Amino acid sequence: MNTNLHPVISIRLFNDDKCFGPGIAQLLERVKEHRSLRAAAQSMDMAYSKAWTIVRRCEAALGFQLLVYTTGGKNGGGAALTQEGQDLLDAYNRYCRRLRDQADALFREEFGAFL
Amino acid sequence: MNTNLHPVISIRLFNDDKCFGPGIAQLLERVKEHRSLRAAAQSMDMAYSKAWTIVRRCEAALGFQLLVYTTGGKNGGGAALTQEGQDLLDAYNRYCRRLRDQADALFREEFGAFL
Repeated sequence: MNTNLHPVISIRLFNDDKCFGPGIAQLLERVKEHRSLRAAAQSMDMAYSKAWTIVRRCEAALGFQLLVYTTGGKNGGGAALTQEGQDLLDAYNRYCRRLRDQADALFREEFGAFL
Repeated sequence: MNTNLHPVISIRLFNDDKCFGPGIAQLLERVKEHRSLRAAAQSMDMAYSKAWTIVRRCEAALGFQLLVYTTGGKNGGGAALTQEGQDLLDAYNRYCRRLRDQADALFREEFGAFL
């Protein structure tokens, strides 16, 4: 009766406070692409100050650095993910993919009568 | 390094639009408890008009009634879940419980290095 009925799952990590979710994950992907937090923020129509605050709050909540910054050079300062930042982003992306697959499978089990 | 790190999963059902989630689920539980949409809304500090709109929008998106209303009688009008409403609420509650269990198990697999 509702052929398009489907689950939408939002996945966030909390410590005492919220510390990781889809927004910071996208920002980190853009830092990898643009090699700069400022350019990453611009590509998302986000103020640099907001991007900086998001990263710093995540880092404080997690207890480790997500980004390293380089200064100077021909193209000015840049940014890159730390190894731990990359590991966390990889774990989050795998986790979201696996959990959404399970969510789809469970949905067919539990909501079959409504589809 | 983050012993309290844990996932927080929000689970909603969409058709073309959002049509079921934690808010309407709680409202339906309160209707069962209070046998009245007005009393259910009051118990959540929600305006009756808002509760009524939420239920009607869900019903329109799903294509079936969630509530039946009775009028008159000693205690005035009341409300109860339809069989389909009860079935949907049961399916949603089971789905959330099973998916959160799986989310916890997957989390230990993917984020072990961060715990």
